[in-house]
Amino acid sequence: MDIKEYVTDIAKRAKAASRTLATLSTDVKNTALLKMADRLEEQAAAIIEANKKDMADGEAKGLSKAMLDRLMLDEKRVKGMADTLREVAGLPDPVGEVIRMWKRPNGLQIGKVRVPIGVVGIIYESRPNVTADAASLCLKTGNAVILRGGSEAIHSNTAIAKALKEAGAEAGIPADAVAVMEITDRAAVMEMLKLDKFVDLVIPRGGEALIKAVAENSTVPVVKHDKGLCHTYVDEDADPMMALKICYNAKVQRPGVCNAMETLLVHKKAADGWLPAIGKKFKEAGVEIRGCERTLKILPYAVAASAEDWDTEYLDLIISVKVVDSLQEAIDHIAEHGSSHSEAIITENYSHAQRFLQEVDAAAVYVNASTRFTDGGQFGLGAEVGISTSKLHARGPMGLEDLTTTKYIIYGSGQVRK
Amino acid sequence: MDIKEYVTDIAKRAKAASRTLATLSTDVKNTALLKMADRLEEQAAAIIEANKKDMADGEAKGLSKAMLDRLMLDEKRVKGMADTLREVAGLPDPVGEVIRMWKRPNGLQIGKVRVPIGVVGIIYESRPNVTADAASLCLKTGNAVILRGGSEAIHSNTAIAKALKEAGAEAGIPADAVAVMEITDRAAVMEMLKLDKFVDLVIPRGGEALIKAVAENSTVPVVKHDKGLCHTYVDEDADPMMALKICYNAKVQRPGVCNAMETLLVHKKAADGWLPAIGKKFKEAGVEIRGCERTLKILPYAVAASAEDWDTEYLDLIISVKVVDSLQEAIDHIAEHGSSHSEAIITENYSHAQRFLQEVDAAAVYVNASTRFTDGGQFGLGAEVGISTSKLHARGPMGLEDLTTTKYIIYGSGQVRK
Repeated sequence: MDIKEYVTDIAKRAKAASRTLATLSTDVKNTALLKMADRLEEQAAAIIEANKKDMADGEAKGLSKAMLDRLMLDEKRVKGMADTLREVAGLPDPVGEVIRMWKRPNGLQIGKVRVPIGVVGIIYESRPNVTADAASLCLKTGNAVILRGGSEAIHSNTAIAKALKEAGAEAGIPADAVAVMEITDRAAVMEMLKLDKFVDLVIPRGGEALIKAVAENSTVPVVKHDKGLCHTYVDEDADPMMALKICYNAKVQRPGVCNAMETLLVHKKAADGWLPAIGKKFKEAGVEIRGCERTLKILPYAVAASAEDWDTEYLDLIISVKVVDSLQEAIDHIAEHGSSHSEAIITENYSHAQRFLQEVDAAAVYVNASTRFTDGGQFGLGAEVGISTSKLHARGPMGLEDLTTTKYIIYGSGQVRK
Repeated sequence: MDIKEYVTDIAKRAKAASRTLATLSTDVKNTALLKMADRLEEQAAAIIEANKKDMADGEAKGLSKAMLDRLMLDEKRVKGMADTLREVAGLPDPVGEVIRMWKRPNGLQIGKVRVPIGVVGIIYESRPNVTADAASLCLKTGNAVILRGGSEAIHSNTAIAKALKEAGAEAGIPADAVAVMEITDRAAVMEMLKLDKFVDLVIPRGGEALIKAVAENSTVPVVKHDKGLCHTYVDEDADPMMALKICYNAKVQRPGVCNAMETLLVHKKAADGWLPAIGKKFKEAGVEIRGCERTLKILPYAVAASAEDWDTEYLDLIISVKVVDSLQEAIDHIAEHGSSHSEAIITENYSHAQRFLQEVDAAAVYVNASTRFTDGGQFGLGAEVGISTSKLHARGPMGLEDLTTTKYIIYGSGQVRK
């Protein structure tokens, strides 16, 4: 079978399954999720065995230690996946919710109801737990899912999906509701992106190049899970101790993730007094500082930032630092260089806080808190499918609701249009 | 200037204007809308003069009478545009609405707020009133708009935009908030579709070929205003008089629009008794009937439907008619041939009504009413930007809310992530 046929066949069958899924009751879906959780634990040995193949291949291919760590599965991580499934079973089911219902003067009763989207394609890399997480979120919302993990995790992903499918079948879930693309060629992804007749939404999670390729080639709507080039602006009226604590947290607590700070903007009036203090903390934590000219004068151990630094997501213990003349300059810098993910101001000035909240265009805008909070769990939304950096359909941490669309249902009694 | 430069310049300036627009108060926006309405009326003579050029060009090019009628502007139609602007001024402003706000255990106060999308590109044909309508809806929601009307209406559109811009400037609206693409080449549209850095949303309204070209070539998110291949299913348990009234209305009242019925599905038990009655009414109204084999036996004056008929949006006094064995067959036919726009069942059977509402996947699903009601005004949403046949972001009649996105605003007091 050629790749096009292979992918089209998966997508067609997923579409057919999605029609059944849309009609399943919450009870059936939850029972399936709980069975799936048990089955993952029961088949832990087989899953770990499959994962060993991926690990061996990965080592042979020379994957980095960080990549191998993300790929690795053990008893604890399999249990972690099972627990996520149980957690998703416990969340409220958004499908069928009547968001609003109203009556028109002619007696038509019009309701806006949440319904599944249909077929969701998820493109991701390395972590095999995404297979279980994404499948559970899609099942809970009545969507069929096509999972396209990376080639480096194919044995693990296939073993996980096998356990999910077996348990799902026992609970009445159509076999094609969860599909794993076993051909992991880039060409197979490109085929899926053209199947807008069958696939309703694609969520790419991964490197910039992958996301760019998806956005440029897809006729299926895309919600991106893109990079986070997050700024923190320390205002002239910032509480210096609070600013230290927040900036340190935003950069150092977990530098490899999208909601970590990459660029620090400091008002010129705060620079002389405050920069040496944060510089010292960063230095102690091993953070490399790349500063603008004014920063270099205050922090002699910093290196000079190049023009590209302001557009770079380091995902590492590196930070770019710029001294600005005003709140306006900070807002302008963010508009030019930010990725509209998470942006923060540290200030005690009421008007500055309100202006920042209003004028900065990003998925999450903070006053006096660390950008690291941009996360479905931290926001209290329950499990998350990803963090949308798109503006349309969903923005910021995507919860179950964001895996639904709506339809209008209209109860009439013979009305005709005049 | 080449086309790419021309379009990029428009888009860049629109993006810059959108930052100012996002901060305008509702009062400023409403004042501008009212001034714009007055200015349109004041400049009616100039606008009608410009329209005469388009009409003359259109006649020379041999545009159809229907096209010329859509293109034509007179005093009354200019007043109609002005009235729409005043109506939009009277609608509630969705921008700034806090949809939800909650407090996390760590004290973070998280709010989800409606904000403008940014820059919206609208691609449309013939009717110059869309220029004023779309501009007013985008202005009300704080979005900059790039209007790309057809070449056949370019003089009218430019004259309308001139009036809007002049009045807007007096009220403090940035000049680049409303841009008209005066180069109407298809190539210019294609350029805009690649400018995802500046343009946040594209709404194509028009023929299937246009919409397909946009969907296939755009890296900007697209909300389609696509075709409506709407069905009405007359169930075995339908009230025959109600079915007559509704089916006649759905087909005949205004056949040239997307929410008109194109295919009638009739349960076999209703066919013998009921089809002759609707057939007679259709015949009297000059509707051509294209029937399946079973239909032809009952309505000898019908012509045989070809396979393509089930996939054809006639937008005319033509209807395809199919006799089905069951509700299931009707639902399956709609899933295969429908365009997910508007679908109706006529029945007195409670379970059939509920199944149809749940299982039919469309923007609007009706029980016992005409599909002709799918419309922002009829639904009570106020003015509409179009009817989305996309599933993502907006579905069905698009009101002001659908021209907004959200951002999370987070009020902290020094919180850091643990």
